[in-house]
Amino acid sequence: MHLQTADFAALERFYRRNLFNTLPGPRGLHLIGTKSHRGVENLGVFSSVVHLGAGPPLLGFVLRPLTVPRHTYHHLKAQGGHFTLNTVHPGILEKAHQTSANYPLETSEFAATGLTPLYSELLKAPYVAESPIRIGLELVEEHHIKANDTLFLVGKIIEIFVPDEYIASTGHVEHQELQTMTVAGLDTYFNNELAARLGYARP
Amino acid sequence: MHLQTADFAALERFYRRNLFNTLPGPRGLHLIGTKSHRGVENLGVFSSVVHLGAGPPLLGFVLRPLTVPRHTYHHLKAQGGHFTLNTVHPGILEKAHQTSANYPLETSEFAATGLTPLYSELLKAPYVAESPIRIGLELVEEHHIKANDTLFLVGKIIEIFVPDEYIASTGHVEHQELQTMTVAGLDTYFNNELAARLGYARP
Repeated sequence: MHLQTADFAALERFYRRNLFNTLPGPRGLHLIGTKSHRGVENLGVFSSVVHLGAGPPLLGFVLRPLTVPRHTYHHLKAQGGHFTLNTVHPGILEKAHQTSANYPLETSEFAATGLTPLYSELLKAPYVAESPIRIGLELVEEHHIKANDTLFLVGKIIEIFVPDEYIASTGHVEHQELQTMTVAGLDTYFNNELAARLGYARP
Repeated sequence: MHLQTADFAALERFYRRNLFNTLPGPRGLHLIGTKSHRGVENLGVFSSVVHLGAGPPLLGFVLRPLTVPRHTYHHLKAQGGHFTLNTVHPGILEKAHQTSANYPLETSEFAATGLTPLYSELLKAPYVAESPIRIGLELVEEHHIKANDTLFLVGKIIEIFVPDEYIASTGHVEHQELQTMTVAGLDTYFNNELAARLGYARP
């Protein structure tokens, strides 16, 4: 199939959404935890987290104001910019997916799905106790994507939790052991099986 | 393991790079194709592509000016903002990884690694003939991430190539059939196995 710009608008709406959402392939899958100014805990599933750098450790992610309720954004602004990233494995997949339902603001997705909030002393946002990798962040920058009114948010990592036994001596986190999953589009989840760790490439 | 900001700087440099780069888990893997103003074809491996929206179809990716040669950036600026995204499967994994080597500006990573450039009538940048999913884009926005001097680039999709037989009637691209791979950090590649396609979640 070969399509160009003029063909895109002619596609049926849900077909087009699925096509473009799944097109680039499986991507990272995370639960983002926040807390409202009234103290309600919020959890949402995201597939747009990107690594920006290791020194200082920074991650970015996309918020879609037009299609997704912006609870996550308002909450993290209300609580000192704090939010958490939590990985997803098969044992919590269905609960993680269920957090994507359109719950009202006063409902905690933790309570609604049966996931367990967990706090550290440092962060005003809840972690997911069932996630082996938990990353605590503070918002440092927001960029407005004018082309479709989405937001690209940049967070500085201020705290991490990783099970010792899954970190190699080189610093690599062993996601094949942790069964960390990926997702294509909004609904298609994948298990990741290690294919190869390749050496530093030289010309 | 529990680390906070004050601990990060004390980590050995390569350990820290591997730790934070692999920490969030496997993510999307793509070859980005560009062409220089002198006509040299360039190919680089990227793990920071995010979906921004389906109507209009937009993707974003991160360029790291301090740690990676910026050939891709200069080339896409020189050729009308055109660049291509191409997926990676096991049959081309080692060649794809090899494009990350630090070749001089006048060397084409296609020639150096044995991948095949492919052109459409529309785009001034080369596709990878061996990639089943090929996406042609035009740069529409750049955002400067002040926290670490990286760039977040936004591209509008103007052309796509997908094998017919791997698109479901719903529009989903079947990446498990295409063997589309993911990557954690700079060197750890994964095969993706379909776990579940879950229905639209309701409260």
